Amino acid sequence: MECHIISIGNELLIGDTVNTNASWLGQRLTESGVDVTQVHTIRDELNTMKSVLQTALQQADLVITTGGLGPTHDDITKKAIAELLGCELVVDQDILSFIKNIFEKRGIPFSKSNYHQAEVPECCEVLFNTQGTAPGLWYNGEQAALGVLPGVPFEMKHLTNNKLLPKINSISGDRRYRFSHYLTTAGIGESTLSDEVIGDLSSLLNDNVEVAYLPSPQGARIRVSGYGRSQDKINERLNPVLDHIRDKAGTFIIGEGKDCSLSAEVGKVLQNQKLTMAAAESCTGGYIANAVTDIPGSSDYFVGSVTAYANAVKIKELGVSKEVIETNGAVSKEVALKMAKGAAQELNADIGISTTGIAGPGGGSKEKPVGTIWIGFWAQNQHFALQALFTNKRLINKERSAAVALETIRRSILDISEMPYGLKKHSA
Amino acid sequence: MECHIISIGNELLIGDTVNTNASWLGQRLTESGVDVTQVHTIRDELNTMKSVLQTALQQADLVITTGGLGPTHDDITKKAIAELLGCELVVDQDILSFIKNIFEKRGIPFSKSNYHQAEVPECCEVLFNTQGTAPGLWYNGEQAALGVLPGVPFEMKHLTNNKLLPKINSISGDRRYRFSHYLTTAGIGESTLSDEVIGDLSSLLNDNVEVAYLPSPQGARIRVSGYGRSQDKINERLNPVLDHIRDKAGTFIIGEGKDCSLSAEVGKVLQNQKLTMAAAESCTGGYIANAVTDIPGSSDYFVGSVTAYANAVKIKELGVSKEVIETNGAVSKEVALKMAKGAAQELNADIGISTTGIAGPGGGSKEKPVGTIWIGFWAQNQHFALQALFTNKRLINKERSAAVALETIRRSILDISEMPYGLKKHSA
Repeated sequence: MECHIISIGNELLIGDTVNTNASWLGQRLTESGVDVTQVHTIRDELNTMKSVLQTALQQADLVITTGGLGPTHDDITKKAIAELLGCELVVDQDILSFIKNIFEKRGIPFSKSNYHQAEVPECCEVLFNTQGTAPGLWYNGEQAALGVLPGVPFEMKHLTNNKLLPKINSISGDRRYRFSHYLTTAGIGESTLSDEVIGDLSSLLNDNVEVAYLPSPQGARIRVSGYGRSQDKINERLNPVLDHIRDKAGTFIIGEGKDCSLSAEVGKVLQNQKLTMAAAESCTGGYIANAVTDIPGSSDYFVGSVTAYANAVKIKELGVSKEVIETNGAVSKEVALKMAKGAAQELNADIGISTTGIAGPGGGSKEKPVGTIWIGFWAQNQHFALQALFTNKRLINKERSAAVALETIRRSILDISEMPYGLKKHSA
Repeated sequence: MECHIISIGNELLIGDTVNTNASWLGQRLTESGVDVTQVHTIRDELNTMKSVLQTALQQADLVITTGGLGPTHDDITKKAIAELLGCELVVDQDILSFIKNIFEKRGIPFSKSNYHQAEVPECCEVLFNTQGTAPGLWYNGEQAALGVLPGVPFEMKHLTNNKLLPKINSISGDRRYRFSHYLTTAGIGESTLSDEVIGDLSSLLNDNVEVAYLPSPQGARIRVSGYGRSQDKINERLNPVLDHIRDKAGTFIIGEGKDCSLSAEVGKVLQNQKLTMAAAESCTGGYIANAVTDIPGSSDYFVGSVTAYANAVKIKELGVSKEVIETNGAVSKEVALKMAKGAAQELNADIGISTTGIAGPGGGSKEKPVGTIWIGFWAQNQHFALQALFTNKRLINKERSAAVALETIRRSILDISEMPYGLKKHSA
């Protein structure tokens, strides 16, 4: 079943708004076995709308429009549809009383022009919108079906999931579904993962099975997508590839599923082993604590942290001696080790993690260029530091240092001997 | 000058990638006086490409394509253009040696099929791409001009700025430029700002001047956009509106410009007055420290912070007494005040800021529901706490609490008596 999407709105063309509606719809429709072949983004101008809509209805089996339904858009979508399909715009009484009720609750006077919002082309079925004042529409024509949605993203999504997809499923047409499965790794670069760890997959891939490596500062995500006429058929196609990748990538994989995050996975590992953690952050400046506490329930295993930007804070709150800082510099193995120990002991946690480095853009030297980072780890039975050299970009350095720190915790608890990015363990 | 953009790539249609190229181009072209009237997103399929390209060249004065140039796409863009314009694909020697050089450096063997990457339609001018292996193209036809760009965003942007825009500026055609100016506020909601503070702007607005309120967790941004035939003309149109808004919104405005951020503005205020700050974070869990240290040079005024998730950390690192916590609960005015004082005094800063609250989703009670937040402020001459009630969403509560905390610092230093969102000051 071939589908064209028509996105209406000047704000999309001049770049004030990114067309996330089209990509969200593209994904939902593709998952539902609909083949999205074109997206047309146009202005809210009647003649353009009519001509693009007419062509789309001729070329595709299904056409979906978003936007152009609000009162400020002169309702061009409804007008264009009524004119094209040759029917009248009539006031829908259910919509009218729903809108009147909303206006009353908000204490806004209901004017004559607001009646237009309750108007619908007589030949269309209403997809009642409980989330806003613009109704959705459905028309099942002989040549093609038409779905009409508001442009406000949460209204559009709600109507798609609850009203539009059931309608689409009710019409006949060839389906080819697509589902994706995600595997998240950490502490390994995209090219090392694909070239050295997983290797050539071409014998497992075909027109119905695709693999993509998606880079991220914490490591790389692997998306395995399959096409087929049913979910079972797709799973059957994906499973051999997934098993192969799981086998090859082994402990580099921290979790599965689209929303898998490193801080959540580290939290699970801590919770499973009934361990607590604390952090001492210099160059990451609170990034680790913030990422860990984004996870609901993190207070079960995260006791707290010290962001020690000033050396005085490293000394007073973490018990790093002034001498160690003066002898080795704040960015050093010795200070990283003492900070990690201080975090665990002063804050009373099982595990202490620390970062000290030059995040940039300033502060680098020939010996210690911007991007030089030391990460310290302390637990009762082990105590070591890792040295990394990242980029000259402050925010990336913060994010990558935090990711290495968190992945170091995960690997240490799980007794994985190789450290993130193959970094070497330095002991005291 | 009317322009159509053609975005090529299956990943855009199935929603794996959001079409940010089209919105970025839409904005740059609009700023350059080009009127983007349609965006067509299509698959990398030759016949579709030819038919959409042909129609676009008939309807618009300028057509710009992105994508479909890589070796994995079978070069459909170049093939479609050559067939439509009736010319041959020929190998460009400069591109060939550039690509060969890249392959050599990376140690990848150069195969026969890589020659295709150096092929260009003979009738087109090459826009040499120094950032990758896919060349840009330019064709100035009698009816319409055509610009061809790679789909990789940074290559596309680089070629647009350095090669394509000068070409577009060299061709004739009516121009109507658009520029936007941004004013950033904090500690005030979008509707209060627009309805109560700034009021009705309709007498200042017309077809050439628009105002939009863009909500954000820290407050609201105001975008004032103008159209005209020159930058001077647009400024002339925007200035009365900008002055009016500056006058009305006064100290709610924290800064101007598209990239203005609250943590950067707070940093400037601290630096100007040679003051230092420290934070004691419970419910924000490191968000404040992380936002403050995102700003280069923040070590000049930020000494550090304590993330005190466990009560033991509040007691040991911040000097909050066990009794105060037991009597009032950790989420209380008294604890917020002690945490702020502890941050300033234990970490040796001029200003201490604190947060303690129930971020959610769990942990709420009837008396203290999820979203209950206390923010403490301590400086030598003042000491108070604010109470807010936010949402039931953890991440939004963290972000909004941090924004109120930072804006409280800014307003206190600048002697602005009204607190964010009109919150009342509670003293000890």
